Amino acid sequence: MRLALGVAYDGRAYQGWQSQASGLAVQDKLEAALSTFAAAPVQTVCAGRTDAGVHGLMQVVHFDTAVERTPFSWVRGTNRYLPADIAVQWAQPVSDDFHARFLATSRRYAYVLLESPVRPALEAGRVGWAFRPLNGEAMRQAAQHLLGEHDFSSFRASSCQAKSPVKTLLRAEVTRREAGAESAYWRFDFEGNAFLHHMIRNIMGCLLAVGQGTHKPGWIREVIAARSRDAAAPTFSPDGLYFLGPVYDAHWGLPTRTPAFDWIP
Amino acid sequence: MRLALGVAYDGRAYQGWQSQASGLAVQDKLEAALSTFAAAPVQTVCAGRTDAGVHGLMQVVHFDTAVERTPFSWVRGTNRYLPADIAVQWAQPVSDDFHARFLATSRRYAYVLLESPVRPALEAGRVGWAFRPLNGEAMRQAAQHLLGEHDFSSFRASSCQAKSPVKTLLRAEVTRREAGAESAYWRFDFEGNAFLHHMIRNIMGCLLAVGQGTHKPGWIREVIAARSRDAAAPTFSPDGLYFLGPVYDAHWGLPTRTPAFDWIP
Repeated sequence: MRLALGVAYDGRAYQGWQSQASGLAVQDKLEAALSTFAAAPVQTVCAGRTDAGVHGLMQVVHFDTAVERTPFSWVRGTNRYLPADIAVQWAQPVSDDFHARFLATSRRYAYVLLESPVRPALEAGRVGWAFRPLNGEAMRQAAQHLLGEHDFSSFRASSCQAKSPVKTLLRAEVTRREAGAESAYWRFDFEGNAFLHHMIRNIMGCLLAVGQGTHKPGWIREVIAARSRDAAAPTFSPDGLYFLGPVYDAHWGLPTRTPAFDWIP
Repeated sequence: MRLALGVAYDGRAYQGWQSQASGLAVQDKLEAALSTFAAAPVQTVCAGRTDAGVHGLMQVVHFDTAVERTPFSWVRGTNRYLPADIAVQWAQPVSDDFHARFLATSRRYAYVLLESPVRPALEAGRVGWAFRPLNGEAMRQAAQHLLGEHDFSSFRASSCQAKSPVKTLLRAEVTRREAGAESAYWRFDFEGNAFLHHMIRNIMGCLLAVGQGTHKPGWIREVIAARSRDAAAPTFSPDGLYFLGPVYDAHWGLPTRTPAFDWIP
């Protein structure tokens, strides 16, 4: 029997999603908890691997098991064996041809950033930080150049294992909210069919270079055209990056809700 | 010269505000950072001590120093020596008769709670959790009974050092926001002239007992009248408790802004 799970996690304590020899990846913790609950080894396939320090609001995984339990028993039973910063949100039986990774038609991410002369404290590790004011209109113009199908080699980490650097970005939105004197929260929403390794963090580095006035918005076109990592800005911090979750065709009937995420996570 | 500081901190890693022999209190970290920056010992007085695990959005402290620096130098210089989860938000010179504790006319706190069949993950340690639905109208009625001047002995920890259990609660508001299927965030706002040790966590235990239907709203009156800790519900978790900050007379001219705190911290 195949099951799909929605999983939320705070990425700060982990070496990313993908299983590590150290056992300190989110996947390691999830599979250990599932295997304990099922009293049999469980291996999972996820919708989108996240880097060290990146958070998951609704990661989706699938796995096969001979163990029969009600969906909520899987949720509650697995959560009992997970650390406090990881929790299964829902479980649902799916047909054997469901695949969490291959069938995701798109993936959604948000980057949350604090603009303030003072660094974050309560939100440390959960928001990026810019101590200089950002120009929203410039960043919005820059983001427009990223939309559509492009060769994103300039935004691709050398460690990236994707077969092709050509991806389609469907959405890149920039919103701002005042947060008291001299401070604001910025939220960047991205949706794409797939993302290269470090792609969003590299895009964020470039958008912030434009927002701080280091480059004009049209510079992003040059960065894309260069197809070279050297053309882009440095990779920005993982702190404020949230995997909101994958999108599947409605006929799979999976829950579409994400946990509450209004602005500040 | 006397200086006042606004300080924000995530309480999860600390044994509360007040200095401990272990050195693991927020006050220890702040005084160590201030002393390093000032190159001279600094001792602080705070507006309101917080328990282990309780967060501070705008704690206010004062201290005396012979070191002359611009206010923002104190902010940036001290933050350099503070852990990532504590940060000075502002610094301001005050006259020698300012006192962070004695001159606070009231103190404001918020408690944030996740109501959901599934426990929090990303918000672990930053929200309380109720897995059963809560009755908001019942909790609001119960909260009304707490307003005004009362002997709050029933909500007082045995370790409390306050001279009198008589305090005045000026505000006790309950608000709710939907957070997807079967989930909601609740926020409880409290303002009072002063609070006893564990008072808000004990009030929260009682409000939740009413919200879950264990007691009627009017039971709170009986709890107050009993003047005995045995009459009240167990002390609720510190996880979702935030000290929003003290209130001072406007003539002191201190910043009144708190960091962004819309709903979910």
